Amino acid sequence: MAKELKDLTKSDENYSQWYNELVVKAGLAENSAVRGCMVIKPYGYAIWEKMQAALDRMFKDTGHQNAYFPLFIPKSFFSKEAHHVEGFAKECAVVTHYRLKNDPHGKGVVVDPDAKLEEELIVRPTSETIIWNTYKNWIQSYRDLPILCNQWANVVRWEMRTRLFLRTAEFLWQEGHTAHATREEAIEEAEKMIHVYQKFAEEWMSLPVVVGHKSPNERFAGAEDTLTIEALMQDGKALQSGTSHFLGQNFAKAFDVQYVNKEGKLEYVWATSWGVSTRLMGALIMAHSDNNGLVLPPKLAPIQVVMVPIYKGEDQLTEIRARFEAIAAQLREKGISVKIDDRDNVRSGFKFAEYELKGVPVRLAMGPRDMENGTIELARRDTLEKETVSQEGLVERIEGLMTEIQENIFKKALAFRESMITKVDTWEEFKRVLDEKGGFILAHWDGTVETEVAIKDATKATIRCIPVDAPDEEGVCVFSGKPSHRRVLFARSY
Amino acid sequence: MAKELKDLTKSDENYSQWYNELVVKAGLAENSAVRGCMVIKPYGYAIWEKMQAALDRMFKDTGHQNAYFPLFIPKSFFSKEAHHVEGFAKECAVVTHYRLKNDPHGKGVVVDPDAKLEEELIVRPTSETIIWNTYKNWIQSYRDLPILCNQWANVVRWEMRTRLFLRTAEFLWQEGHTAHATREEAIEEAEKMIHVYQKFAEEWMSLPVVVGHKSPNERFAGAEDTLTIEALMQDGKALQSGTSHFLGQNFAKAFDVQYVNKEGKLEYVWATSWGVSTRLMGALIMAHSDNNGLVLPPKLAPIQVVMVPIYKGEDQLTEIRARFEAIAAQLREKGISVKIDDRDNVRSGFKFAEYELKGVPVRLAMGPRDMENGTIELARRDTLEKETVSQEGLVERIEGLMTEIQENIFKKALAFRESMITKVDTWEEFKRVLDEKGGFILAHWDGTVETEVAIKDATKATIRCIPVDAPDEEGVCVFSGKPSHRRVLFARSY
Repeated sequence: MAKELKDLTKSDENYSQWYNELVVKAGLAENSAVRGCMVIKPYGYAIWEKMQAALDRMFKDTGHQNAYFPLFIPKSFFSKEAHHVEGFAKECAVVTHYRLKNDPHGKGVVVDPDAKLEEELIVRPTSETIIWNTYKNWIQSYRDLPILCNQWANVVRWEMRTRLFLRTAEFLWQEGHTAHATREEAIEEAEKMIHVYQKFAEEWMSLPVVVGHKSPNERFAGAEDTLTIEALMQDGKALQSGTSHFLGQNFAKAFDVQYVNKEGKLEYVWATSWGVSTRLMGALIMAHSDNNGLVLPPKLAPIQVVMVPIYKGEDQLTEIRARFEAIAAQLREKGISVKIDDRDNVRSGFKFAEYELKGVPVRLAMGPRDMENGTIELARRDTLEKETVSQEGLVERIEGLMTEIQENIFKKALAFRESMITKVDTWEEFKRVLDEKGGFILAHWDGTVETEVAIKDATKATIRCIPVDAPDEEGVCVFSGKPSHRRVLFARSY
Repeated sequence: MAKELKDLTKSDENYSQWYNELVVKAGLAENSAVRGCMVIKPYGYAIWEKMQAALDRMFKDTGHQNAYFPLFIPKSFFSKEAHHVEGFAKECAVVTHYRLKNDPHGKGVVVDPDAKLEEELIVRPTSETIIWNTYKNWIQSYRDLPILCNQWANVVRWEMRTRLFLRTAEFLWQEGHTAHATREEAIEEAEKMIHVYQKFAEEWMSLPVVVGHKSPNERFAGAEDTLTIEALMQDGKALQSGTSHFLGQNFAKAFDVQYVNKEGKLEYVWATSWGVSTRLMGALIMAHSDNNGLVLPPKLAPIQVVMVPIYKGEDQLTEIRARFEAIAAQLREKGISVKIDDRDNVRSGFKFAEYELKGVPVRLAMGPRDMENGTIELARRDTLEKETVSQEGLVERIEGLMTEIQENIFKKALAFRESMITKVDTWEEFKRVLDEKGGFILAHWDGTVETEVAIKDATKATIRCIPVDAPDEEGVCVFSGKPSHRRVLFARSY
């Protein structure tokens, strides 16, 4: 570990390598033996569990219930919505057989050719099709609507280039799938959920996001409108962190889901879907961490306070540990998670570095001198500030710090993000800002797919979104010179 | 729904059909369009979530952490432990391709033959192999041990005959996988976890279970010892409800996982694994429910108290609803979940039947007369008793009832189970009891696989377990007449 700590690549030397190393060294995740699939290690999973718990509470508070739908989707279902299958066909894992048998020519086992499935099954890359095929039986009349379901599940998309958390063949996520009687209600739901994601990103992840609509070209396959939250990473690249789709009647028509309205007439049902995934872990790591390791907002930190005794000999340790335990008990009563690290086989300097790597928000250290003086050393991970404080009032101080650190991390990320939004009006400026500074670019766009694609081909920048709060503003497209009525948000992205 | 309620098959007419109908009609689960895979509906999933939360807390309290490992297992890994592959090969879903493409001969999509995987992937039926391949990199010295991980996940076993919750191709479960320095510590862990399951079954599910060892023939594929909890259903058949395996060094040897012990010597690591699944839902339903529907122990009931207003006209409803809401607020403060059902399109009798079907532990009904008298009608689901009680002290009374009902359901199940354990000493008696009464049979067995198989072939009864608390007792095998030193537990089972 000591070696590992020192070896963390500097983020300004190689951001991508810094990220990969940090994920592994902080014990968050690692690559598995299966191409593109990751192992989420206990420390990483503990953060994901906190994300899940907070999101799940927010979903339930907005009237949603959890359910569970099959992992497998019959190939024929998958093909029913034309845009949908087009969007996902190239990245599907396909189950074709259901049995192994002993290899007649040698040792080991082979796939049993006699056990071929009549219809191949797709491992779900997303569940609209299997869910709408199910909803068909749940919905007869307007009284059965709305249906507000969410599912926590694993999904598989056979990505060619994968990165831990950011893009993996298998990932964990939640997918909400709702059914409504009217277009307006479905649109309202899609908007409500993107704002739930925004609230979660800002209040739990300390991550400011821009809410907006995707351009038609970047919409979810099968959606009429895709709302997104876009975050900015410290290297100036954007990261799409959650999406909420208004699906119109596309899936209802593909699966023939109609209901009898109050007037006794048959109508197709309106749909939304929305999801966030373990990709949020990548956003959390990249948005806040530094060359010493992770910086975790207290609300998502598995360990919020770590205590390290500074001692010589068993007697001193016993005394300090007792004092720590008394403080820990008080902190735990306030709902603050605490770890006392009294390992005797590593030095305290090593422990300090380890908890910095792991992003523990507050570190307390206490030695014999502190015991005499009634003091304690308190270090903040977010600012790296250290000070010696009185043990008196310590619990209240730490309780306050939890909020203060949470907000400070947000403010820092927000200040960075604001400093990285540039309004540009010419194509030369567009390219220059993108190359020299990066970040978000607010520019006029003529609204055509051709221009969008041309800009992407020329610069690798895409339209991240058309912000919901973008004011009307007359201008000309930065690329084509054609008229435009509002600025959209461009960036290079993950 | 009214039709559905009346149509529930009587359990004594056709137990199996009663079960299937109950699962569907109570809104717990249904078959999906994918062979053998179920949809867990919101009401069923809400019970599963409560099970998960309680178990997860118990796992964490015993020092375990959650993690997540890949859905897919390379075929070669799967084959490394000989007994393991033998046990699971016949029921594996196999991913062979990773892309679809447009069918050149017609419409729709087909599997792209050019996108064949170099090595086929097994959809995990259980994760020992991929996890031990991972642990290899986590374990170097005794300081890295123990590893105490749990995973909440979906697994797939291609079963030919499936039944909702009891046996499905895909199911949800948790699987604990621990690594230890010594044989003794691993055995202790396996025992600790089977007792965690026992405690959960008894205290949360109100389900008495027998704890014991599986006979060698019934062990998990790759285990040296399998501990089990066995429950009895109301039709007299046993249901294996959870297992905990001492895996010896089998997987450590298969994946070459060694550690340096305190003396500096290399040793193979010792392993356990343990799991419970959505099968527990089947146990919960079959153990307690009746011809009116589910009977849920309060600790697992998504709705613990339902309130039904009895009224004529909007004014009465407004008044009653206000009173209900005041009571509901007090109950919620005590952590009791409450639903007020003021639907105006169904009669209250229909509502009563619906909440009986759904197993809501306590039902409150209030009409104008009750409003005048300060009374309320209180009905218990477990006993079907109804009484008119004072509104005064109602909250305390209901709080007490939650515990009382939880215990009463357990006591009833325990009394039934005890009445269904029969000691038999002759083969004729064995067959007679099995056919006429069913339940558990305590009988002597000579300890051989031959006898075990012969008994199963003759009667369909298997050795459910060798109970951990079975006293030493000399006797002769009920089948072979050979000497035996303790009785074992036989039953027909799910």
